[in-house]
Amino acid sequence: MGDIAARTEKEAEKDNSKSGKDGAIGVTTGPIRGSKKIHVAAQTGSGIRVAMREIYLEGGEDPVRVYDTSGPYTDENAHIDISKGLPELRKDWIMARGDVEYVDQREIKPEDNGQLGPDRSGGVDPFPNVREKVLRAKAGKNVSQMHYARQGIITPEMEYVAERENLGRAKLKEYNRSGESFGASIPDYVTPEFVRDEVARGRAIIPNNINHPETEPMAIGRNFLVKINANIGNSAVASDVAAEVDKMVWSIRWGGDTVMDLSTGRNIHDTREWIIRNSPVPIGTVPIYQALEKVGGVAEDLTWEIFRDTLIEQAEQGVDYFTIHAGVRLPYVPMAAKRVTGIVSRGGSIMAKWCLAHHKESFLYEHFDDITEIMKAYDIAYSLGDGLRPGSIADANDEAQFSELYTLGELTHRAWKSDVQVMIEGPGHVPMHKIKENMTKQLEVCGEAPFYTLGPLTTDIAPGYDHITSGIGAAQIGWYGTAMLCYVTPKEHLGLPDRDDVKVGVVTYKLAAHAADLAKGHPAAQVRDDALSKARFEFRWRDQFNLSLDPDTAEEYHDQTLPAEGAKTAHFCSMCGPKFCSMKISQEVREFAGKQNQSAEGFLASEKLGSETAAASKAAAEAGMKEMSEKYKDMGDRLYLPADEVE
Amino acid sequence: MGDIAARTEKEAEKDNSKSGKDGAIGVTTGPIRGSKKIHVAAQTGSGIRVAMREIYLEGGEDPVRVYDTSGPYTDENAHIDISKGLPELRKDWIMARGDVEYVDQREIKPEDNGQLGPDRSGGVDPFPNVREKVLRAKAGKNVSQMHYARQGIITPEMEYVAERENLGRAKLKEYNRSGESFGASIPDYVTPEFVRDEVARGRAIIPNNINHPETEPMAIGRNFLVKINANIGNSAVASDVAAEVDKMVWSIRWGGDTVMDLSTGRNIHDTREWIIRNSPVPIGTVPIYQALEKVGGVAEDLTWEIFRDTLIEQAEQGVDYFTIHAGVRLPYVPMAAKRVTGIVSRGGSIMAKWCLAHHKESFLYEHFDDITEIMKAYDIAYSLGDGLRPGSIADANDEAQFSELYTLGELTHRAWKSDVQVMIEGPGHVPMHKIKENMTKQLEVCGEAPFYTLGPLTTDIAPGYDHITSGIGAAQIGWYGTAMLCYVTPKEHLGLPDRDDVKVGVVTYKLAAHAADLAKGHPAAQVRDDALSKARFEFRWRDQFNLSLDPDTAEEYHDQTLPAEGAKTAHFCSMCGPKFCSMKISQEVREFAGKQNQSAEGFLASEKLGSETAAASKAAAEAGMKEMSEKYKDMGDRLYLPADEVE
Repeated sequence: MGDIAARTEKEAEKDNSKSGKDGAIGVTTGPIRGSKKIHVAAQTGSGIRVAMREIYLEGGEDPVRVYDTSGPYTDENAHIDISKGLPELRKDWIMARGDVEYVDQREIKPEDNGQLGPDRSGGVDPFPNVREKVLRAKAGKNVSQMHYARQGIITPEMEYVAERENLGRAKLKEYNRSGESFGASIPDYVTPEFVRDEVARGRAIIPNNINHPETEPMAIGRNFLVKINANIGNSAVASDVAAEVDKMVWSIRWGGDTVMDLSTGRNIHDTREWIIRNSPVPIGTVPIYQALEKVGGVAEDLTWEIFRDTLIEQAEQGVDYFTIHAGVRLPYVPMAAKRVTGIVSRGGSIMAKWCLAHHKESFLYEHFDDITEIMKAYDIAYSLGDGLRPGSIADANDEAQFSELYTLGELTHRAWKSDVQVMIEGPGHVPMHKIKENMTKQLEVCGEAPFYTLGPLTTDIAPGYDHITSGIGAAQIGWYGTAMLCYVTPKEHLGLPDRDDVKVGVVTYKLAAHAADLAKGHPAAQVRDDALSKARFEFRWRDQFNLSLDPDTAEEYHDQTLPAEGAKTAHFCSMCGPKFCSMKISQEVREFAGKQNQSAEGFLASEKLGSETAAASKAAAEAGMKEMSEKYKDMGDRLYLPADEVE
Repeated sequence: MGDIAARTEKEAEKDNSKSGKDGAIGVTTGPIRGSKKIHVAAQTGSGIRVAMREIYLEGGEDPVRVYDTSGPYTDENAHIDISKGLPELRKDWIMARGDVEYVDQREIKPEDNGQLGPDRSGGVDPFPNVREKVLRAKAGKNVSQMHYARQGIITPEMEYVAERENLGRAKLKEYNRSGESFGASIPDYVTPEFVRDEVARGRAIIPNNINHPETEPMAIGRNFLVKINANIGNSAVASDVAAEVDKMVWSIRWGGDTVMDLSTGRNIHDTREWIIRNSPVPIGTVPIYQALEKVGGVAEDLTWEIFRDTLIEQAEQGVDYFTIHAGVRLPYVPMAAKRVTGIVSRGGSIMAKWCLAHHKESFLYEHFDDITEIMKAYDIAYSLGDGLRPGSIADANDEAQFSELYTLGELTHRAWKSDVQVMIEGPGHVPMHKIKENMTKQLEVCGEAPFYTLGPLTTDIAPGYDHITSGIGAAQIGWYGTAMLCYVTPKEHLGLPDRDDVKVGVVTYKLAAHAADLAKGHPAAQVRDDALSKARFEFRWRDQFNLSLDPDTAEEYHDQTLPAEGAKTAHFCSMCGPKFCSMKISQEVREFAGKQNQSAEGFLASEKLGSETAAASKAAAEAGMKEMSEKYKDMGDRLYLPADEVE
């Protein structure tokens, strides 16, 4: 297993099913086409270097920098060896704080890997470089970013986030900010102090377990770029550990900001170790899944002790956030029983069954403060699970859902008392007119803790297209203030997503998150849109492909109609052909107009505007004309402005 | 050509490229799986029978009726012969009004088919049953539906629309209507009189040329179901007329409410004749495209006379609505020259070039009243084109766009003076926070004439996924009040859509339109969502597939993971497997809860709700609890309501 080689994307595509054991394959590597990984020194001069991606353009255009989640895998200078894991970027930062100590790792038990027995035969090989010692906070210490923030300390993680989020803001002066942010406070420029303040207030989290020093720090909060999460899970037979790791690598290549490992069954401990050691993004899990495996799948047999042991197990591995369904309380369960689709959250249904079977309050709720003690010893963030989220339009915004939300609000404030980071999970299935209420209530009840929603799906009638039914809801709730959107693939409700489905899901959510950033008025979001639009107008086809979220698909679609290389520099496209191209005609119009060199007044004087205006629209038209006329005057007498002077 | 056979969908899929000349293929026919075409007698007792589709369910569930655009092609009892055309459903209705007369058809000229010459060699065969006489209004008569409506006449077309739109409203009593319609006036029940009134006010149109009696009448207006349009165009070499007709048939099979034929170049007159004679949905065109062909593609050479002649040619064939870019006025052209992406509408750029070249006002604007005279003699609806729509986020809502909109408002009122039906085309590329302004301005300036938008795309950075970037915008603008959404396929900006792209585009827009109907509070929209959700909860897999917008894809995705026939009745799915299925656990919870038969008070008394509530969330939580508690009381002491009594 030691000599797993990196593979290029092309090879990966061709050779996806090969076993890692023969050393022939590894994970997807190589730059995304037309771009290069760069490392930008933080402006603070601290020496921190922040990973970004730069897209190179033709025609003398400046390169465009974009936020990059892909880690070293797209860096042509990086040597990838998944049996060694990624470099430990944060190691020194963590150690320098002097509040952690090495302890022996909890012993791995057979049940951690689904009762495979000590030799784990037939399962996944253990990660070769597994640590024998792991980090934990010294007694009485709290190592959470929130704790530092509240003490006024700006950590290197906060500095990294600030630089990363500032992307493109240097171009800010060219833009008049416009947008509707529904009460968010997005700054023109992100300073490390701003990040600290947001974390201290609980409005943002930086999920990074001290045992996952491989992460490139990122923030989740509504005053930062909208993030997306991709879910992965193990295959039934995990014979190829490289394929399991590659699911994570593939998700972040296209834009996954965090990855949740939702594996169940066998090999999950070892698979998780491989994934975390190779992940530059935060990893989230739902620990109750593994706990349930340990009691043979019988919900009633779950105990606090087994759950607690699972938390420690995963905390030591380096999981960055835990979904904890502590809001599924006993009295809420009957509220869900009368629904059209009952309880659709796996964790929620497990806890509901436990509560009913014992007729007792949830042990997650009862032991919430005990869980918090664990979270703060490793800096794991809560992702308070919405176990009672609606599973259909019919069940949206009902009493079960909102009752749980109130409890999540209560728990948020309880966690904050211990300076533990929190985000809140949200629905689900919600028709458009009921989406805003979710956001408004969440902000109010949970004190502006980051909201992390699944979709929501805006209709139930399109299985096979639920990445789209939910992308519509995701863009909207992102606009309203949701900080992270959990992706949905085309296979949702139908089957297990394959490699193509994962890519489609990630790209769909990336475009939804970006649409939300634009609408919120993020100061730099439009840089990439404008670069692509300009390339389109100027027929720089390769630039259009490279600037898009998925260059490969864009080029492939283009080539299906006009495959010749010459078509990539042609001043028309396949839709209308050379004769009818509106962009081409439009350029001719611009040239023609430019030659006339006539003043605005001259142009307008030759018209009898308004004279034939129908009575009903006259007032509106005249108001419009007046506005235009004033704008003309503001521009002086230049009628034909160059394209790059567009307001 | 006379013996073109109908083909089943499976055959069509396999055999899509075969020429029609050997008689082997025709167009796609056969029922959509799990459903049947039905004809429902209008409740007025007039004898009018309205086409619908009924989806049959398992487990004793009632069938679900859905709106159906597919025409006779999905009717297993229909005999399809595209060389004969469809039955003339409206013929008697049109003749009975006594205001039309037969006139000789305008002689077909070589330039009508792109200079192919009289023998049209190498082109498409003429439609065999082409009419020698066509209908026109008698001198002094106006045959528009708006004209009848304003005289208080309820036409059979209006009655058909009323019955068609009422779909599912019989189940209305089960629903509490909820929604936000932004000032629309959607009735609980649609009467023929309501349709008449909406058409009279100009708030809805029923596009149906008297020379296209094959249409099943439909309405476009914001108080009706949101409609979608699919664009088709001829192939460069149109050797297979059946393939051209099948593009239309394929579009309406999946839900296209109208189809625009945007063909250019050769064979367009003959191809259009084949399409119209076989289309049960309204057909729209952009006549300036054909006019430009007639002058060899040189915009400056266009004249009013050539354009007028083209309008007559297409009016006689039966085109139901014309896109007329009469709002692209001379003084607006320079406003577009400074944009990032100039003018992106083909018709708009043609007219802009003409205006600048002649330095004259647009002949479409100057001759608008002459065009109106033609429209009213055939009942063709205006689709007032937005030639200056933005082609990028950067250009959204600018002065060029809104100046044109004011002019379209002026022209709307001018057309209404002659009782001619009008809808207004809208953008384009608009970030989410600027979408609403488009709708608000359009309603105000155009007197609530139906809005018909292309998308809008909410970001420019995802070529290859623009059905999704635009589906997000389409769902929103549909919610705000847009009456018809023009689809965008995954190939937008890149290449020509193939059969799969057309289907993806149509289904995406259908789900966006449906999401809008739900959010507007359409009284019956949720029937299908609930039927599908219930099927999902009860593991009726086949019903889930059949109720979805695209049953074939849903089943295919399911079978990729669990192909066995048994899996379609299994009480779990591939995502979690039998042990972890939340739906299954949820059903167990319901049974368990049902057995306990405990009262709400008993349940709640055992809890100490609120006592540990953190200060900050306490008030909110208590309010929520109070609300819940009151709801409980309203329900009496029944804690576990049956699923079908859900509010």
